Amino acid sequence: MGNSFGTLFRISTWGESHGGGIGVVIDGCPPKLPLDVEEVQCELDRRRPGQSDITTPRKETDSAEIVSGLYEGKTLGTPIAIYVPNGDHRPSAYAEMKDTFRPSHADFTYQSKFGIRNHEGGGRSSARETIGRVAAGAIAKKILKLAGNVEIRAYISRVHTIEMPPLEHFPSLDEVEASPVRCPHPPTAEKMVDCIKDMRKNGDSVGGVIECRIRNLPVGLGVPVFDRLEADLAKAMLSLPATKGFELGSGFAGTELRGSEHNDRFVNKSGKIGTATNCSGGVQGGISNGEELIFRVAFKPTATIIQKQATVDKDGQETELMGRGRHDPCVVPRAVPIVESMAALVLVDHWMRQQAQCHSFDFESA
Amino acid sequence: MGNSFGTLFRISTWGESHGGGIGVVIDGCPPKLPLDVEEVQCELDRRRPGQSDITTPRKETDSAEIVSGLYEGKTLGTPIAIYVPNGDHRPSAYAEMKDTFRPSHADFTYQSKFGIRNHEGGGRSSARETIGRVAAGAIAKKILKLAGNVEIRAYISRVHTIEMPPLEHFPSLDEVEASPVRCPHPPTAEKMVDCIKDMRKNGDSVGGVIECRIRNLPVGLGVPVFDRLEADLAKAMLSLPATKGFELGSGFAGTELRGSEHNDRFVNKSGKIGTATNCSGGVQGGISNGEELIFRVAFKPTATIIQKQATVDKDGQETELMGRGRHDPCVVPRAVPIVESMAALVLVDHWMRQQAQCHSFDFESA
Amino acid sequence: MGNSFGTLFRISTWGESHGGGIGVVIDGCPPKLPLDVEEVQCELDRRRPGQSDITTPRKETDSAEIVSGLYEGKTLGTPIAIYVPNGDHRPSAYAEMKDTFRPSHADFTYQSKFGIRNHEGGGRSSARETIGRVAAGAIAKKILKLAGNVEIRAYISRVHTIEMPPLEHFPSLDEVEASPVRCPHPPTAEKMVDCIKDMRKNGDSVGGVIECRIRNLPVGLGVPVFDRLEADLAKAMLSLPATKGFELGSGFAGTELRGSEHNDRFVNKSGKIGTATNCSGGVQGGISNGEELIFRVAFKPTATIIQKQATVDKDGQETELMGRGRHDPCVVPRAVPIVESMAALVLVDHWMRQQAQCHSFDFESA
Amino acid sequence: MGNSFGTLFRISTWGESHGGGIGVVIDGCPPKLPLDVEEVQCELDRRRPGQSDITTPRKETDSAEIVSGLYEGKTLGTPIAIYVPNGDHRPSAYAEMKDTFRPSHADFTYQSKFGIRNHEGGGRSSARETIGRVAAGAIAKKILKLAGNVEIRAYISRVHTIEMPPLEHFPSLDEVEASPVRCPHPPTAEKMVDCIKDMRKNGDSVGGVIECRIRNLPVGLGVPVFDRLEADLAKAMLSLPATKGFELGSGFAGTELRGSEHNDRFVNKSGKIGTATNCSGGVQGGISNGEELIFRVAFKPTATIIQKQATVDKDGQETELMGRGRHDPCVVPRAVPIVESMAALVLVDHWMRQQAQCHSFDFESA
Repeated sequence: MGNSFGTLFRISTWGESHGGGIGVVIDGCPPKLPLDVEEVQCELDRRRPGQSDITTPRKETDSAEIVSGLYEGKTLGTPIAIYVPNGDHRPSAYAEMKDTFRPSHADFTYQSKFGIRNHEGGGRSSARETIGRVAAGAIAKKILKLAGNVEIRAYISRVHTIEMPPLEHFPSLDEVEASPVRCPHPPTAEKMVDCIKDMRKNGDSVGGVIECRIRNLPVGLGVPVFDRLEADLAKAMLSLPATKGFELGSGFAGTELRGSEHNDRFVNKSGKIGTATNCSGGVQGGISNGEELIFRVAFKPTATIIQKQATVDKDGQETELMGRGRHDPCVVPRAVPIVESMAALVLVDHWMRQQAQCHSFDFESA
Repeated sequence: MGNSFGTLFRISTWGESHGGGIGVVIDGCPPKLPLDVEEVQCELDRRRPGQSDITTPRKETDSAEIVSGLYEGKTLGTPIAIYVPNGDHRPSAYAEMKDTFRPSHADFTYQSKFGIRNHEGGGRSSARETIGRVAAGAIAKKILKLAGNVEIRAYISRVHTIEMPPLEHFPSLDEVEASPVRCPHPPTAEKMVDCIKDMRKNGDSVGGVIECRIRNLPVGLGVPVFDRLEADLAKAMLSLPATKGFELGSGFAGTELRGSEHNDRFVNKSGKIGTATNCSGGVQGGISNGEELIFRVAFKPTATIIQKQATVDKDGQETELMGRGRHDPCVVPRAVPIVESMAALVLVDHWMRQQAQCHSFDFESA
Repeated sequence: MGNSFGTLFRISTWGESHGGGIGVVIDGCPPKLPLDVEEVQCELDRRRPGQSDITTPRKETDSAEIVSGLYEGKTLGTPIAIYVPNGDHRPSAYAEMKDTFRPSHADFTYQSKFGIRNHEGGGRSSARETIGRVAAGAIAKKILKLAGNVEIRAYISRVHTIEMPPLEHFPSLDEVEASPVRCPHPPTAEKMVDCIKDMRKNGDSVGGVIECRIRNLPVGLGVPVFDRLEADLAKAMLSLPATKGFELGSGFAGTELRGSEHNDRFVNKSGKIGTATNCSGGVQGGISNGEELIFRVAFKPTATIIQKQATVDKDGQETELMGRGRHDPCVVPRAVPIVESMAALVLVDHWMRQQAQCHSFDFESA
Repeated sequence: MGNSFGTLFRISTWGESHGGGIGVVIDGCPPKLPLDVEEVQCELDRRRPGQSDITTPRKETDSAEIVSGLYEGKTLGTPIAIYVPNGDHRPSAYAEMKDTFRPSHADFTYQSKFGIRNHEGGGRSSARETIGRVAAGAIAKKILKLAGNVEIRAYISRVHTIEMPPLEHFPSLDEVEASPVRCPHPPTAEKMVDCIKDMRKNGDSVGGVIECRIRNLPVGLGVPVFDRLEADLAKAMLSLPATKGFELGSGFAGTELRGSEHNDRFVNKSGKIGTATNCSGGVQGGISNGEELIFRVAFKPTATIIQKQATVDKDGQETELMGRGRHDPCVVPRAVPIVESMAALVLVDHWMRQQAQCHSFDFESA
């Protein structure tokens, strides 16, 4: 309860930043999917720390092992367990956090909820937990690719106040990966890198916005009324550490339009019904309409800063805490593959649900 | 699948805008809760059409009957079924929509997904479906009130481009209900009403933003990692018709702050640990921290407008459709009790989950 | 929680023997299924009291109304709500049960668990609750019939100590319905009827065994490891009031065989792989193997007897209680359609799950 | 889907007899439970092969590692992952099973369902899968012990046709473990051992019955109507490999009693309400009544026998298969800790559910 996600393609993640490792179990994966551990590792490498000079210099190899569910390069339809052992951690770095709560971290709430916590690292609230999501997401992305050439592309559209101009085309993976900040607009990307470096110099941090676009989706994914496609995407995104908002299509800005401006009129696109505009963001009535799916996710600035901050200890005594260690001044670039992974998980799950309800039986020819 | 919400306090809604009625089944409600049907009816009255001159003049009485789970004014712990019969509907009003898809409605996606739809009214995508949510939400709100004086207050903070100034205090229900637009800032409310009336005159529509604040929440609600409190709230809100976005605390604007500005430092509030600021919006690490919970929901302008719009029919032939009928030029005021209801459902569910995991056993005295 | 059953084809039942009525919501039903309320009513009529002189003379009409999810005789893919209003009940008949617990009834445990109960009738533990299951089961049976001519036939194989000889053929519905006791072996049926009448005369009751056989099932239904087909069937059956046991294929008797006697060797049946014997009861490794599925369910004698019984009241004072009213001396005949219904619900659910996991994607031609 | 069990205390098992290992993730475990890996290992040792001369001589060390969820000897409330690496396996032993289906094994159904299978060992249908259940069960048993001194004792009551006389007392663990066959009646145990050795000599196998008794359970566990305690126990037991039946209390034999004989009258037991007899087996109306919970599970004879058997290959060609290898002629003794584990999982889950629904709120003092 709480550590599983999905209905039919269901993942369960486990593991803390300390302890033996991090992992995920995927239950419900279709059989006969060709799969190589390299495909998983490749996505983990996009997520891991230390990949560029704007991320934390902490080196984590995050090397994945698939320990079940695979046979001769194909999935068996049985649970796929993926295991990433933890490397060394340095508990001494966290000694002073034992009794003192870091501002805007999960220390206080975990302690209050569970009555116990591991102060050595973030425990379960650490971003390391997302390793399991990315490993599972790599498999979900592969399924979508094979099933219908569905492509999921996330990228950073804003860091702090530096915003990318609207992107006319669907960016390639290369365009996104060209900059360590994963913004496909090179001049903006450069400014973002400068901003992040500047923050690091000052021991401060920044947040930003990730935009995600998905094309080649079939019509019909999403189940009204509670499991609308956008509802499940919103949950997926807000389940990520450091997220503060989600919007689909026109989003918050769309609330400033009139209905006559916002409505997406239907048109015939070479024999296929589509819409002339896409304020809907690819979803209508909770169901994908075949247009590009577009959403954005807000990430707050990283809570860990290398500055002295006022706080209290577990007895409520006011005190100060000096952040240290090797942290990302901006986690948003590393969150790009995580956002893609969560989107892929939602989509595969809904694909299977759509198949189950609407294509299990053929009553018309019966 | 798809029509149920919640884990332990679980609702299942059913019913279309046509057909016999609309209803909800609540499974898992605690026993011995004093409950009167009037408490449910009272919330339904806040939701129903025809309550003021800025909503649709359609009269729907929406009279609720509790048909199970109650005995001598108290809940039995067994499923509570609530039934609201449909009044007359006028199918002829929808005849031309049989083969033609209304822009930004769910007609096209429902037809594509299910291969069948009822064109007489919105069917399951109609806002009438939310009746079941509001009925269940009335019960959840009562539980929260009795359990810890938890108060949930939603109100409109923006209509179209008309925005309320930041609200310093927690508004009373009377302040919210004082205006038909449910904005607790009277000068702004007045402008909003004018705006909506103006839209109606032009056969157009507008959207807006609902802000929701919750106080007296205990620390500890929310289950990392996937069922974080904000993740479940985001799903709840994006499962509502016409929503395009959700943000918690600092939200999208918070991404423009630095970590040193955004972090909420802990302070001792008369013996209780709290935070000096509330960028977090009352949730840290996915768990409530005892501060006010604050979130906002974006509603797009109503898709139904009384204008001629270009569209296509089911064969892809381009055509035009003239909206008519009696519709809300702005559904946001009526969505206020719905937002409160969904929030209440999430909170009761997490309260019970917290109790189950963290207070079922006492190992320390064992 | 607790009042829903199924994963993809999911039913939620509600209602007590007192109160407004009894009902069920079916979520996940495939769209475009032709459905007439008569098909549901027909199964309810097999379940209802008063249908013959060996059941309770209580008359309950149990008239079903489908209030959502249907349009022009076809399912919409949205929740199907079915409502059966309660007729008159006679609370005075139950006055003495307010503070005194009937032996082997649910009075004591409901009171202890919930701290409240409705003593007027059995409340939620009443067999009336199964009305919702039978209504939903009628739809599931129709789906199976249309999907693959799957036939489910339950019948009584034993009443008290009167056992039917092994049945060589798959009995027709007419054979089962020929006797009010629903045993397809007329000489045995006659003895069973006599036994039940005899029990009624003595104010006593008897139990029995229902056997259920299902043919034309596809190979592949059932999900290892926890949702094996027989595990879900066992849960379904033990969720019925008055059941004490479940066995599949060779069952308890099979434990007395050696492996060399019990193994079902595979044979080629006109081009199809089958088994020469069927100790497995149609399931191997938790998955249907295409042979006839056979299971049996044990029903204890009805707890209500028209005799004076020693018991205690809510304060633990020993007292006596005289059963009265109009009750079945043997509920097993009326349980036949209920067993069929629960089996149908399990099978449709697993059919959809099989489709979802194993037929949503075709990686081989990709 | 299918590899998880439980609602609030939820386990997900993974792993095949080949591949990297076997494991389990436990989600929802209460925090602050004192736990040592030895407590888990101890139960695994009761389950593993090679523990006596009536089990397979295959040596499997089955050494457990707890890789998450634990800190300084206490649970954190986060997922507990337990990992048991696989030792050497000998794929060559299985070469001939690649294209030929072993009678009464899961080879044919797995191949038909998934279109792929690992023929090297039983894959997911191997009894090795139950390692994860036993590891999780060890934790559940500890919780029950600490929470209320709840004791779960399973033992063999029958092997083939050798039946133990009724046991008057609740047997101690030592009594059960005194014989390798885990029957607490020494003279019967001796005969059972002889029978099993005899079967081994003949290359044949036998099944049997496990009885399980549970004492000190609180009143109130179990959720009507679908999640009755006995329904969840039945599912738990029928989800075990090789099981063919489940019965509670009087079970199948109880169907031969009259109501007047079967009813358990209530009595005052030193101030506590109890029943004079226990045909109910500790459950009434789906809810525990505070009496001893008693159920029995039927295990068929092991499918693997060391004899030549007729079967077919994947093309339907009739052929023969000679079993070999080192297998248990009777798996029932090793199933004893597995039955206890599954029972413990069901009970902890229902304990938490009971707490959640009935003790989260106190409306009476509000």
